[in-house]
Amino acid sequence: MASEEIELSGHIIDSWTLPRAWDTIMDRGGNFTVEEMRVGASKTEPSYVRLKVEAPDDEILERILSELQQFGAVLVHAADVRTAPIEKDGVLPARFYSTTNLPTQVRLDGQWVDVENIEMDVAIVIDYANGRVYGKPMHEVKVGEQVVIDHDGIRVHPFERARDREAFAFMQSNVSSEKAKVLAIHEIARHMKATRERGGKILFVLGPAVIHTGAGRYIADLIRRDYVQVIFGGNAIVTHDVDSALFGTSLGVDLRTGEQVEGGHRNHLRAINAIRAAGSLEKAMEMGLLREGITYEALKRNLPMILAGSIRDDGPMPSVINDMQEAQRRMREALKGVEMAIMVASMLHAIATGNLLPATVRTVVVDINPAVVTKLADRGSFQAAGLVTDAELFLRELAEALS
Amino acid sequence: MASEEIELSGHIIDSWTLPRAWDTIMDRGGNFTVEEMRVGASKTEPSYVRLKVEAPDDEILERILSELQQFGAVLVHAADVRTAPIEKDGVLPARFYSTTNLPTQVRLDGQWVDVENIEMDVAIVIDYANGRVYGKPMHEVKVGEQVVIDHDGIRVHPFERARDREAFAFMQSNVSSEKAKVLAIHEIARHMKATRERGGKILFVLGPAVIHTGAGRYIADLIRRDYVQVIFGGNAIVTHDVDSALFGTSLGVDLRTGEQVEGGHRNHLRAINAIRAAGSLEKAMEMGLLREGITYEALKRNLPMILAGSIRDDGPMPSVINDMQEAQRRMREALKGVEMAIMVASMLHAIATGNLLPATVRTVVVDINPAVVTKLADRGSFQAAGLVTDAELFLRELAEALS
Amino acid sequence: MASEEIELSGHIIDSWTLPRAWDTIMDRGGNFTVEEMRVGASKTEPSYVRLKVEAPDDEILERILSELQQFGAVLVHAADVRTAPIEKDGVLPARFYSTTNLPTQVRLDGQWVDVENIEMDVAIVIDYANGRVYGKPMHEVKVGEQVVIDHDGIRVHPFERARDREAFAFMQSNVSSEKAKVLAIHEIARHMKATRERGGKILFVLGPAVIHTGAGRYIADLIRRDYVQVIFGGNAIVTHDVDSALFGTSLGVDLRTGEQVEGGHRNHLRAINAIRAAGSLEKAMEMGLLREGITYEALKRNLPMILAGSIRDDGPMPSVINDMQEAQRRMREALKGVEMAIMVASMLHAIATGNLLPATVRTVVVDINPAVVTKLADRGSFQAAGLVTDAELFLRELAEALS
Amino acid sequence: MASEEIELSGHIIDSWTLPRAWDTIMDRGGNFTVEEMRVGASKTEPSYVRLKVEAPDDEILERILSELQQFGAVLVHAADVRTAPIEKDGVLPARFYSTTNLPTQVRLDGQWVDVENIEMDVAIVIDYANGRVYGKPMHEVKVGEQVVIDHDGIRVHPFERARDREAFAFMQSNVSSEKAKVLAIHEIARHMKATRERGGKILFVLGPAVIHTGAGRYIADLIRRDYVQVIFGGNAIVTHDVDSALFGTSLGVDLRTGEQVEGGHRNHLRAINAIRAAGSLEKAMEMGLLREGITYEALKRNLPMILAGSIRDDGPMPSVINDMQEAQRRMREALKGVEMAIMVASMLHAIATGNLLPATVRTVVVDINPAVVTKLADRGSFQAAGLVTDAELFLRELAEALS
Repeated sequence: MASEEIELSGHIIDSWTLPRAWDTIMDRGGNFTVEEMRVGASKTEPSYVRLKVEAPDDEILERILSELQQFGAVLVHAADVRTAPIEKDGVLPARFYSTTNLPTQVRLDGQWVDVENIEMDVAIVIDYANGRVYGKPMHEVKVGEQVVIDHDGIRVHPFERARDREAFAFMQSNVSSEKAKVLAIHEIARHMKATRERGGKILFVLGPAVIHTGAGRYIADLIRRDYVQVIFGGNAIVTHDVDSALFGTSLGVDLRTGEQVEGGHRNHLRAINAIRAAGSLEKAMEMGLLREGITYEALKRNLPMILAGSIRDDGPMPSVINDMQEAQRRMREALKGVEMAIMVASMLHAIATGNLLPATVRTVVVDINPAVVTKLADRGSFQAAGLVTDAELFLRELAEALS
Repeated sequence: MASEEIELSGHIIDSWTLPRAWDTIMDRGGNFTVEEMRVGASKTEPSYVRLKVEAPDDEILERILSELQQFGAVLVHAADVRTAPIEKDGVLPARFYSTTNLPTQVRLDGQWVDVENIEMDVAIVIDYANGRVYGKPMHEVKVGEQVVIDHDGIRVHPFERARDREAFAFMQSNVSSEKAKVLAIHEIARHMKATRERGGKILFVLGPAVIHTGAGRYIADLIRRDYVQVIFGGNAIVTHDVDSALFGTSLGVDLRTGEQVEGGHRNHLRAINAIRAAGSLEKAMEMGLLREGITYEALKRNLPMILAGSIRDDGPMPSVINDMQEAQRRMREALKGVEMAIMVASMLHAIATGNLLPATVRTVVVDINPAVVTKLADRGSFQAAGLVTDAELFLRELAEALS
Repeated sequence: MASEEIELSGHIIDSWTLPRAWDTIMDRGGNFTVEEMRVGASKTEPSYVRLKVEAPDDEILERILSELQQFGAVLVHAADVRTAPIEKDGVLPARFYSTTNLPTQVRLDGQWVDVENIEMDVAIVIDYANGRVYGKPMHEVKVGEQVVIDHDGIRVHPFERARDREAFAFMQSNVSSEKAKVLAIHEIARHMKATRERGGKILFVLGPAVIHTGAGRYIADLIRRDYVQVIFGGNAIVTHDVDSALFGTSLGVDLRTGEQVEGGHRNHLRAINAIRAAGSLEKAMEMGLLREGITYEALKRNLPMILAGSIRDDGPMPSVINDMQEAQRRMREALKGVEMAIMVASMLHAIATGNLLPATVRTVVVDINPAVVTKLADRGSFQAAGLVTDAELFLRELAEALS
Repeated sequence: MASEEIELSGHIIDSWTLPRAWDTIMDRGGNFTVEEMRVGASKTEPSYVRLKVEAPDDEILERILSELQQFGAVLVHAADVRTAPIEKDGVLPARFYSTTNLPTQVRLDGQWVDVENIEMDVAIVIDYANGRVYGKPMHEVKVGEQVVIDHDGIRVHPFERARDREAFAFMQSNVSSEKAKVLAIHEIARHMKATRERGGKILFVLGPAVIHTGAGRYIADLIRRDYVQVIFGGNAIVTHDVDSALFGTSLGVDLRTGEQVEGGHRNHLRAINAIRAAGSLEKAMEMGLLREGITYEALKRNLPMILAGSIRDDGPMPSVINDMQEAQRRMREALKGVEMAIMVASMLHAIATGNLLPATVRTVVVDINPAVVTKLADRGSFQAAGLVTDAELFLRELAEALS
């Protein structure tokens, strides 16, 4: 039998940390003994527990500890963090530590140091020379860098439910189509205002249905009113946005009348071709060709609008990034300072963004399809809340709630 | 080879009647020869076609003719309608004619007479003594009544697309969640106004999610503004409506704050029990127990609110009809004068209503689940249009568009 | 401040009972102090906790205790159960206790007595004369009966996860369409065999898609092999089953070739009419009219097949029960001895059945629509497991796994 | 008024070509006069119609003609095809002709010449020097190439329903989850056999759920039995396939037992890292690291397996193509000789593939989500048929039907 002693502290009962830890130990084939336990006498006091975790062999114990760390468990007999050097570009050492998206610290010379640029499923590089510690994706690691391995000296700060102070109550459980959405939308609006007041950035991740439904105008309006600082999307959103700006159509439907005006396969290609002829979106704007829409408003204000290509793209529109590694790099860069993310009617780009966001960014996922909301809101992100509703009517209501 | 000559006339090209007829003949194993054809020179002129339909045997021919009649085909060598007497209560003659929901006529003594109370899948009874012809469901036919059999002397008037005059354009194809719903909602509002101006009744079929989402207030508002003349629903909608009127909750959620205030399994039973103790919904209103909500507004104005029970009901609430035959009878009665039907977040009661509605009633089906919309809007009802959107936000927008 | 002391014991950590209890107290606005706590040293030992629950007022305390009881909480200063008499048929006393579907006991003269016929959302009647205690739905209570009120002397036995002994592992979480279903199907098959070996009955709740997909043959086969003891359904399943037995079609599709052979609106009415003409399903079988299918096999073996009508029914087919109260009564009766329930492609009848089943009946819900599975499997039934998969292929695989 | 005469011929009635043409003219604001019409006397004879199409102005007429061409309309006063030169790399002339995915011809010197490499939404390049005509995507056109513009001299061959000879009947309408899938699966199997017998290639487009459900084994089996010649997918399918080959897990679930063995966020990264360490999938196979699975079987037989990256990728796995333009180019190349395409549980890669496939490739789309099936099967592809069913059970049944 292999064993290890761990500690958990904080709102570990209220936040379900402790029961989830117990569950994990037993699900993975281990066992535990409660060595010490102090339950906070009331809900505002923190609790503490020390457990002896046992497992049939070292491999299972290692796996259990790896999962417990995500709940904030710290090894009692903690040593400093351990590292191994990269021996081949883009390849990690076999026992590399893979991050969660939660705030994380490592112990260097007995001191807990914050990990910068934390996101899910990356490695932690330690720059001993400069005393800096940061997250880095596998394909970017370089020979000679020191990368964290094993489980010593790592501390994760799990998300604690702060029951009393929670201004964002619906966050604690998703809102199905059978619950009152207007209440949740007004809560989101309040949170957006608060974010902007303290100088935080708001990211919108947008799918093309935003344009098809005629809801592009609400986003354009939010940009003008400074509620959008960063936009992520793909070839489809920019193409249909430009299509609607140039021809008043999206997928061949006239957005003012709702009537199908053409087979739908011409205007979006004409829109792409027109911008390619102009040379770029910026030039099309300067030439007076592009005079309205999301892209126009974003360019006018110099907002970062990162458009990541995909294998299904026609064209593509200039500005769309075709190299996936480059696109991820640009998205990571644009995320600095983002404190809130609102993802509307997008699946591919929303999942990609979810992968890159630290858990501290408040995230709202809006889609009419409950499967998309579940997939995104459950994706290891305790901070994400889902709203199963109509994207068009959501944005209309949100724009109204913000005015 | 069996054969028969048929005629089709009207906007048979524009309304796809002719191609669908050709398709049916061939799909069912028959063949046809075009004996005469006059295509309207422009889209406003009617067309005419006479076809010789052939089939390998009489049974297949009969099946083909049966389907062609639904498109408006009339036998060229038409005789008067044929009938057979009912020999056992609730049992039809073997070769009974089964109706569509389209306007239908039968030929009596060489004259075409309208069938009253038309709906899908019923028999046609001919009261020779009084010269009346009407639809009647199988279980209500009585010994001695004369019921239409075979295909002679029957004329169905298919729905013709009236391209230019169509004020209700979105009706021609359903509105997916990826199209502009606000446009369609304003079109529905205009149509509701027009219906009320000419004295037509509007029916609402409501599911319980209308209450859970807090959208009951919009329906109550529409009742007060005389946009609702008939309500169909079940035990759930009335129970949750009363729950929200008495306790401010629905499924245990406080509708003002969105917070879960109890496990959800108590208040709806308490609401039912309170009304049962009062004796009836009407008495609860008189006693001042029930002071708001859809039921309250409907009772106050004496609107027919037909509540059909179902096997999953708790309670049930007084006024809920437990006998399904009786409930159908009451629904049929309440449909007199209804010219428009709006079905929101309901499946069981919406399908039941769809079965009873003649095709001339404009029907709008609203649900966030595309499967429900498809099931209802396609149910042999060319007059039904579906809107895939959020019921709560739809009703909020509709109430606004009507003010 | 109102307060009360409660105890919880058993696998309250492993089964998440304790954290859920803590959560409930705080969510509903209360607070707690851990007065005593003994955590089982390993996962096989039971744990014990004594809590002081506090709330701002009696009403909130009452609500909290009501919910805690469902997790198995027992008041420390427990008295005997309290009752009040029924004063009007079908109306409960205001403070009536509403059941869960979990095994429940009440304390009579200091002794814990089992409640018979337990199901969700019913009252508990105490027959002091005969020392019997049983569940009874609201509409069946009669003047003079004594019904349990408040919270004293009630003990609920929550479902405990029995980690090691669990033969039915997938039960612990639903199986999405993205997990291996073949494994789960073989587990269901093993459980069905075990159920039959110990003489338990298996209930099938069936929706009409079972017939439309041609999977009726697998159910017929399971009946012949004695894996089906009770069937619940509605007018649609029996109508389409008879349609397929008489004409080889379902919704107008030839089940051998998959081809549409008629518009779909004739054969199901002809099937109903033919059985009505025969007088009953039994007579149709005796006359040799009905020679195959689910209904035929069930009648031949005298299996109870409870067909509950609904408001959308055509016909209806003889044997379909039109009165909802009567149908519920017949379903309750047929549930005696049922130890396993398999619900396939049904929503209305599956929800109705779920309402009536005690939590001790193993329940499997199979549907291709994840929303249906979630709705049913989550419906307060810890014992229900959902499988998001194709009903036809599920039944084919199940029939094969059982042979 | 602008006007133009057009001809349509072939099975234009049976294949709904004529009514759809009439519909389009009127929907887009035009009008028509039937100048000549010959309906085939029976269903095997072709029909012919000559129409005068009128529109309020040239732009609308142009739009109508553009859509009619897709149904096979040919201008009566046809001239040779017209072209314009490319003046900037990657930019088309303003009036460029955008293709459908149907077989297309252009008239050069009075002769109809086939367009090679036809797919949806590309330009047609005419190489006058070599007398070759081919489709080319916008971003690949080069200065000096001559590209087709306007509508003269273009003939599209619409898909005709061949009623009697159709071996693939379910193709004519999608198969919902409520119809018999086993019949359709056996039809697909027969068609696969026929395709292989005449030397045609079969393409599989696979999503990661194929691995998560344990159905990878059926694909591996089909590869061994030579029923798979080309595979398209992304980073997820190859990663989870290698994960399952190396560790027996997919998303942390043990594929033999169905049990969750780890949090799910480790093994897929370990799998990618292991292959990156080996250098490539091929080297991992040579080293004996990769010994089973879809990738292993494909590499062993040298099947083209085109893995297109996406913005949500972790890693990525070696062999995944990160540049979207390059990935599309490789996919186009691998499609040569493909006569049948089977897309299972994939959305992104299936849509991308659908964009590239000519209409002559028989395409089957299988997904449990009806929205995915509709999106793909309706995507301008008359040749695609959808099957709403469970991917795992579909592949199991298909593998059985093929043995």
